Amino acid sequence: MKLASFNDGSRDGKLVVVSKDLTRCCAAGLIAPTLQFALDNWARIAPRLEALYRDVEHQAVPCDRFHEREALSPLPRAYQWADGSAYINHVELVRKARGAEVPESFYHDPLMYQGGSDGFLAPRQDIPLGDPAWGCDMEGEIACITDDVPMGVSAEDAAGHIKLLMLVNDVSLRGLIPGELAKGFGFFQSKPASAFSPVAVTPDELAEAWAGNVIHLPLMVDYNGQPFGRANAGKDATFSLADLIAHAAKTRNLCGGSIIGSGTISNQGPEGDPGKPVSEGGAGYSCIAEIRMIEQIGTGEPRTRFMQAGDTVRVEMRDAAGHSIFGAIEQTVVAV
Amino acid sequence: MKLASFNDGSRDGKLVVVSKDLTRCCAAGLIAPTLQFALDNWARIAPRLEALYRDVEHQAVPCDRFHEREALSPLPRAYQWADGSAYINHVELVRKARGAEVPESFYHDPLMYQGGSDGFLAPRQDIPLGDPAWGCDMEGEIACITDDVPMGVSAEDAAGHIKLLMLVNDVSLRGLIPGELAKGFGFFQSKPASAFSPVAVTPDELAEAWAGNVIHLPLMVDYNGQPFGRANAGKDATFSLADLIAHAAKTRNLCGGSIIGSGTISNQGPEGDPGKPVSEGGAGYSCIAEIRMIEQIGTGEPRTRFMQAGDTVRVEMRDAAGHSIFGAIEQTVVAV
Repeated sequence: MKLASFNDGSRDGKLVVVSKDLTRCCAAGLIAPTLQFALDNWARIAPRLEALYRDVEHQAVPCDRFHEREALSPLPRAYQWADGSAYINHVELVRKARGAEVPESFYHDPLMYQGGSDGFLAPRQDIPLGDPAWGCDMEGEIACITDDVPMGVSAEDAAGHIKLLMLVNDVSLRGLIPGELAKGFGFFQSKPASAFSPVAVTPDELAEAWAGNVIHLPLMVDYNGQPFGRANAGKDATFSLADLIAHAAKTRNLCGGSIIGSGTISNQGPEGDPGKPVSEGGAGYSCIAEIRMIEQIGTGEPRTRFMQAGDTVRVEMRDAAGHSIFGAIEQTVVAV
Repeated sequence: MKLASFNDGSRDGKLVVVSKDLTRCCAAGLIAPTLQFALDNWARIAPRLEALYRDVEHQAVPCDRFHEREALSPLPRAYQWADGSAYINHVELVRKARGAEVPESFYHDPLMYQGGSDGFLAPRQDIPLGDPAWGCDMEGEIACITDDVPMGVSAEDAAGHIKLLMLVNDVSLRGLIPGELAKGFGFFQSKPASAFSPVAVTPDELAEAWAGNVIHLPLMVDYNGQPFGRANAGKDATFSLADLIAHAAKTRNLCGGSIIGSGTISNQGPEGDPGKPVSEGGAGYSCIAEIRMIEQIGTGEPRTRFMQAGDTVRVEMRDAAGHSIFGAIEQTVVAV
């Protein structure tokens, strides 16, 4: 099933069920007014939403045209956004860029930060940037939404709590990160509002591309209209989404509607090397910080600058037949 | 005005207006079903809640008995919980205990972490502890709840966004903090669910004790029935709650219902020293980590152990006449 939150001017949007091909939708208000309401009562509500989804697919109910541009992030605000770092290639590159080491523990103990969840950008909403020196970067990721997860859940049991999947652009302000991390309490100002894909889907929509609690498909990141990243989310994932949920729930329950992210999708090259840009036949990168590190390794200095007003990013994922699964995040940076 | 969320079995509780003396309450459901709803529409809703509060005070409406034990945290879950460290004496002591330095920047750039907000403990709810080695500690703090705050707000303008005030027990797992902070992304597992006071109050309830966006009253922290902390929240606050809001909003909007905390209340001694325990005539401490550091300085090793199953903490604040303002947080640690 595919779900979206239509922008009706309210804070949490209006829940709609979207057709598999993303062209039609049907208001789900009689079942659940918002996606958070559905997640608060998932066991009871999900079967009814699934039934409506079947009706939408069979054209058995009146539908409206679905326009991705009219969607908010599936959860326009959430009670939790916790972002992991499942792709160690990204961690290795970004740390190298900061002159920091990757501790050995990172290979068995997931890195995770508590993100701000009180307001997400819509998938087509501009990224407001107060100062170009903040070093605005995109991070292409996948994320899941959970139902209620009990404290101390095992990774095995955590898998059953993955109810929906989405794409993320986790906006990062690279210029603010070193100073903020040096203070010791993690990100705050350096992680402004993120944006999620127009549509959230149940794992079964991915068919055999969903295996081991990871999505085995390339994340298509375009920057200023050019292919920038084609890293496969099923490759080089040190941790699955289930591992990340278990990590998050070690000392506390997670509320239904918690969003758990994978961290920036990043593939190694064929020789275990940091890979090549798309323009050179590689899988490319899902954020600018990585290509800057590659440039620095290659030529001694980073060449690609961070995002400035007018720069655009597009994040999408397609199935084996080339159809968009989640719709596309398309954002432009604007100075404010 | 005083507001609480009555535990009616729902996730967000039922909003009630509470009498100034905390003995009576009146359901506010016809005005706003939940406190988050009220905060989402504060400019429109607050005057109607204030009118109901006046009726409650004048006994002009039927009221029920208010029992603090029936209250959830005022926001049982929130879209944001961001906790600062306004009291540098605490930071100095805790860092000393960890063998870490306090950077000079901490005296003008607030330290703040993004806390988990997807589920808070009720003010009388047990603190679940999975392992005594996690080093369970309380942290007595004050916090405010904001309405919508625009990105880039000044500290001066931020003051007008402080709509409600509460007390907090910010539960911390000291045994997990060093390892987690060493990973560089801040707290996650080391900050499980916190609890807030039974009642949230508008700043005018504090009369002249609310000045400079700080509460000028002692925070009464009792540990296992004995006075443990009497630190005055109006003393030694390097940053006001307005300063902390401005810090949080530097790169993003804050959604109505954002909770911003002060960090552990901590007073220096009369000579600028770290102060003395209550039993020795000092203002004491609002967390165990501080007294352990004092013991370490005095005798070479910490004597007070962290909280174990059965240990109790009580956090309250009283006005000049001795009346409880927010009701009391009273929690017992239980092994799970």
